[in-house]
Amino acid sequence: MSTTKAYAAYDAQSPLRDFSLERRATGPHDVQIEILYCGVCHSDIHQVRNEWGNSIFPMVPGHEIVGRVTEVGSHVKKFKVGDLAGVGCLVDSCRECSKCQDGLEQYCENGSVGTYNALERDGKTVTYGGYSKQIVTTEEFVLKVSEKLDLKAVAPLLCAGITTWSPLRKWGVGKGHKVGVLGLGGLGHMAVKFAASFGAEVTMLSGSPSKEADAKRLGAHRFALTSNEETMKGLYKYFDFIIDTVSAPHDYNTYLNLLNTDGVLICVGAPPAPAQIPAFNLIMERRSIAGSLIGGIPETQEMLDYCAEHNIVSDVELIAMKDINESYERMMKGDVKYRFVIDLATL
Amino acid sequence: MSTTKAYAAYDAQSPLRDFSLERRATGPHDVQIEILYCGVCHSDIHQVRNEWGNSIFPMVPGHEIVGRVTEVGSHVKKFKVGDLAGVGCLVDSCRECSKCQDGLEQYCENGSVGTYNALERDGKTVTYGGYSKQIVTTEEFVLKVSEKLDLKAVAPLLCAGITTWSPLRKWGVGKGHKVGVLGLGGLGHMAVKFAASFGAEVTMLSGSPSKEADAKRLGAHRFALTSNEETMKGLYKYFDFIIDTVSAPHDYNTYLNLLNTDGVLICVGAPPAPAQIPAFNLIMERRSIAGSLIGGIPETQEMLDYCAEHNIVSDVELIAMKDINESYERMMKGDVKYRFVIDLATL
Repeated sequence: MSTTKAYAAYDAQSPLRDFSLERRATGPHDVQIEILYCGVCHSDIHQVRNEWGNSIFPMVPGHEIVGRVTEVGSHVKKFKVGDLAGVGCLVDSCRECSKCQDGLEQYCENGSVGTYNALERDGKTVTYGGYSKQIVTTEEFVLKVSEKLDLKAVAPLLCAGITTWSPLRKWGVGKGHKVGVLGLGGLGHMAVKFAASFGAEVTMLSGSPSKEADAKRLGAHRFALTSNEETMKGLYKYFDFIIDTVSAPHDYNTYLNLLNTDGVLICVGAPPAPAQIPAFNLIMERRSIAGSLIGGIPETQEMLDYCAEHNIVSDVELIAMKDINESYERMMKGDVKYRFVIDLATL
Repeated sequence: MSTTKAYAAYDAQSPLRDFSLERRATGPHDVQIEILYCGVCHSDIHQVRNEWGNSIFPMVPGHEIVGRVTEVGSHVKKFKVGDLAGVGCLVDSCRECSKCQDGLEQYCENGSVGTYNALERDGKTVTYGGYSKQIVTTEEFVLKVSEKLDLKAVAPLLCAGITTWSPLRKWGVGKGHKVGVLGLGGLGHMAVKFAASFGAEVTMLSGSPSKEADAKRLGAHRFALTSNEETMKGLYKYFDFIIDTVSAPHDYNTYLNLLNTDGVLICVGAPPAPAQIPAFNLIMERRSIAGSLIGGIPETQEMLDYCAEHNIVSDVELIAMKDINESYERMMKGDVKYRFVIDLATL
């Protein structure tokens, strides 16, 4: 066991503050990582505030973890001390069901294990995330990270990156496709980068005219102001895919109408209230509305390798650990371009 | 021009009664067909009663038409006098857009022409359907019909058949798939026959225990009573596909929950009120909800050829033309196994 400094939510109301936790001793299949950076995901806020009703306190959030390997178990093959490594949203799964066998651990039939606010496979050990100095994770759920990229900007790839990469790959988005990205935040800015990198024509759909310049800098070919009726009319049946990253309530039909025949509206954001979908609007153009959840371990590695090869990272703003509570407030106002990343050296 | 006996709705309230209409002279690309049988589709009732708000009166419904060729234009190649022929939901489209080029005339970018209650491409000539003795249709929208099958039972293939065939083919349903069919009516009974014929394991999902024997006779391997909680729990994440043929209001989430990872709920019935879909329920298993509209001309021909080869037809109840109003009342109560077909010899 080793005692590790961390930052925790002690309950759903109080600001996060210092915490101390025990990490397990590095087992034969484990990798011990000194955490250097951890991205701040919107789901951290939801869980810290118990908005999903399943919070375990004290809670150490953080599932966009990158750092350097400090110890490896005797059976570990992929990593050696000194390597860069990453841990994303999952730290374990049953590894036996057909989903795990297919590299879709996020849909594990026996329940995958979240990096924080979850129980290990033993059913009792609480998992603690990346707002901490160190983590010990089984090798199978540790990702290799290239030395080539700006490390702090790699961290958000572990959640925001894979959450948009996975559906773009699953639906084979690429050359010849017209893709709309709804919402320019942590997920949206990665969707723009990836879709453009895959050769698709990318349109940023946004309610803020101020986002046009940035969307284009990130790789969007077009910008459509969703409040402009004429613009929206011009996009009727225009897209093959729309990646919907918005978790605030919004009218899905507005965007379904922008899909061509066989178009797919892919939801990676989940608003609190159900979407109202007239079946008619799906039937008339053989449209689909689909969801997608983070991504599996093999595809996360594939993404990280691709990013290293194509020099793709997130746009981040580095913060000190003590500024986390203020950063949450800024995120609630959408005041971040486009992901906060904690510098764990400040803890 | 030729005067043709028909049955028409004169307005949205009155019973259908005798009508007389002019069919165009058989042009160089036209096929003139003596209509022998016409199936009765639920959409006939919706349109006769102006429930979609787009009705043109007087209206001669009917888009499940089979009969014998009585005259062909000078350029017609596929048909000769005496051949059996069919006409489905469409009698024309622009034939030039990418959808038409792909054999997806139902999604024609310039608007396909419905067999009745629509305007021809000239924008003024009203189309009249199969509740009549004769129809003249351009060869490209006339289907070849085998002499091998029971002709009256072929008629519903032109709408109920293709509406279920098309999505089953589009989504590649076959061996190794578990398919649920929701609702045992005109569409549902064809979905069961086709999905079973393609090698899938088929489960009939129904609220009526009385339908079990019939579902199994039609080819379903399993029957699930949707009102039985234990049964439904046992089907949690069970299906790869559910074909939803129900146009009455129903809870989509009940059925989404029965879909495994990557499962697709395919809607071919459109309830009047929007479905309430929590995005979360799509995201957690990468599920989709999709729609599908009838089918294109090439796939309709493919289906008819397949049916002739595999001896598949609809289960029908033959009625006289004068009984159409009473038949509508019975359909509203679900009292038909599984499609009424009008014997035009009775007109």
